Amino acid sequence: MASPAAGDVLIVGSGLVGRSWAMLFASGGFRVKLYDIEPRQITGALENIRKEMKSLQQSGSLKGSLSAEEQLSLISSCTNLAEAVEGVVHIQVNPPYYIPLVELVPHPETSPATVDRTHALMRKIGQSPVRVLKEIDGFVLNRLQYAIISEAWRLVEEGIVSPSDLDLVMSDGLGMRYAFIGPLETMHLNAEGMLSYCDRYSEGMKRVLKSFGSIPEFSGATVEKVNQAMCKKVPADPEHLAARREWRDECLKRLAKLKRQMQPQ
Amino acid sequence: MASPAAGDVLIVGSGLVGRSWAMLFASGGFRVKLYDIEPRQITGALENIRKEMKSLQQSGSLKGSLSAEEQLSLISSCTNLAEAVEGVVHIQVNPPYYIPLVELVPHPETSPATVDRTHALMRKIGQSPVRVLKEIDGFVLNRLQYAIISEAWRLVEEGIVSPSDLDLVMSDGLGMRYAFIGPLETMHLNAEGMLSYCDRYSEGMKRVLKSFGSIPEFSGATVEKVNQAMCKKVPADPEHLAARREWRDECLKRLAKLKRQMQPQ
Repeated sequence: MASPAAGDVLIVGSGLVGRSWAMLFASGGFRVKLYDIEPRQITGALENIRKEMKSLQQSGSLKGSLSAEEQLSLISSCTNLAEAVEGVVHIQVNPPYYIPLVELVPHPETSPATVDRTHALMRKIGQSPVRVLKEIDGFVLNRLQYAIISEAWRLVEEGIVSPSDLDLVMSDGLGMRYAFIGPLETMHLNAEGMLSYCDRYSEGMKRVLKSFGSIPEFSGATVEKVNQAMCKKVPADPEHLAARREWRDECLKRLAKLKRQMQPQ
Repeated sequence: MASPAAGDVLIVGSGLVGRSWAMLFASGGFRVKLYDIEPRQITGALENIRKEMKSLQQSGSLKGSLSAEEQLSLISSCTNLAEAVEGVVHIQVNPPYYIPLVELVPHPETSPATVDRTHALMRKIGQSPVRVLKEIDGFVLNRLQYAIISEAWRLVEEGIVSPSDLDLVMSDGLGMRYAFIGPLETMHLNAEGMLSYCDRYSEGMKRVLKSFGSIPEFSGATVEKVNQAMCKKVPADPEHLAARREWRDECLKRLAKLKRQMQPQ
C-alpha cells in the first residue's frame, strides 16, 4: 500500500534523463507525471523504468524506502503539457541516478522562493543542488570541464604527455581527491588553510598559468592522435562504448554508496 | 623469514613523502635504505614507519603479501649519500600510499632504459607511473589543477556561484567520474567516440573558453570570501585541518580499494 505521495512532479521528456529523474522523484515518494511529445515514447519509457527498478531492487541499489512496486505505482504518463509549466527553474543534469549534482539556474524573473523550494525538493530526493546565481555560458560544471580539457589537450598537442597518461594523471591522481573534496577545499587542506595556501603558492600558480597556450582548435592531427589512443582503450563502436559506460556507471554507483558511508558526522 | 629481496632502493629524505615511499617499496619486497641529512630524523622516521605499518596491518590495509614485520626488516637507515645517486629520475609525488600516480620526469641526459626501468619498478609496487616526455613548469598534475583553480576562482569572484557550491560541482559531479576515467576518455564516452565529440562540441567549447576571464590575482576580497567559506566548513587550526585530512585519506584508501575491485579485466 502506497503511503500518501510527498507531492506532485511533472517531468517533461521521457528519454534517458527524464526517466532517471522520474525514478529519483518516485524514490522520494513523489507522484510523477511523465510527459513526452511522442506518446509511444512514454509507453516504452514506463516499461524501461519498470525493468530498471526491478534490477536496482535486486542488486540492493534502489533508492528510497519504498519498494520498486510502490515507486512504480507513483509514476504515470501525461499527454497534456498545458497542465504544467509555470515558474519553472531550469535544471542542468548529468544522468542523475548516481551523480547527485544539480545546477539550479533561475530565470531573472523566477522568485527566490521558487529557487528555495526547488533546492529543498532536490535535497529531499538525495540530490546535491547548487545555486547558479547568474546565468553563464556553459554553467559551472562545463566551464570547469572545459578548463581541464583545454589544458589537457595542449599538453598532448605539445608532446608533453601521451593521451592515456594524461588521463591517468586525473583518474589515478587528482580525480581521486575530487571525488570527495572540491578544488577550493583541496587548497585549504594542502596548506594551513586558504590564506596560507595563497600566500605560499599564488605566485607559482600565476607563473604556471601565464605559460598556458591558446585555446585549442580540437581538430587536425591532435584529434587523430587522441582518438587513436582512446579507441585502443575503448573501440568507438556502439557495443564497446556501451559496455564501458556500463562499467563507469557501476563505478559511480559504488562510489555514491562509499560517499554516503563516509559522510562526515 | 624474509624471502630474498626484490631489489634495492635508496630513498633520499625521510619526511612524510620519503617514509611513504619506503613503505611502498618494502610492500613490494624491495630492500630500502632511507637517507636523511639529519641522522636523528631517520630514527624518528623508522619508529614512525613501524607504528604506521602495524596500524595498517590491523585495519587490513597493509599493501603487499609480506607481513608488517617482514616489510620492516627490509627498511634500514643510511647515512652515506655517496653510495647512491646516479642516473636518477626525478619523481613528483602526492602522498603516495593511497594516490598511486607518479610523474616520471627524466633529465635530458637520462637514458630511456632508466626511465623504462623506473616505470616497471613503479608498476611492480602498484603505483601508476606516467611519462612526462618534456619537462614543463608545474608538471602535468599541477597544470591541470591550476586550470581548474583558475576558472573556479573566477566563477566565485564574479559572483556566479558560492565557494562551497563550487566545490560541490566538483565533488558531487565532475569529480566522481574523474575518480575512474580521465578527461579525454570522458569526452570519448560522452559521444560516439572522440571524433564525434569534437564534431559536435568543439565549437561550443571554444565559445565558452573564449569567455574565460584573465588570470586571477588570488588576493584581496575574494581570498577573504573563499577563506571564510572554507573555515566555516573546516576551521583553519591544526586540529581541525588534521582531522579533515585524516577523513580525506580514509576516503582515498577506500576509493583505492574500490578501484582495485572495479579493475576492468
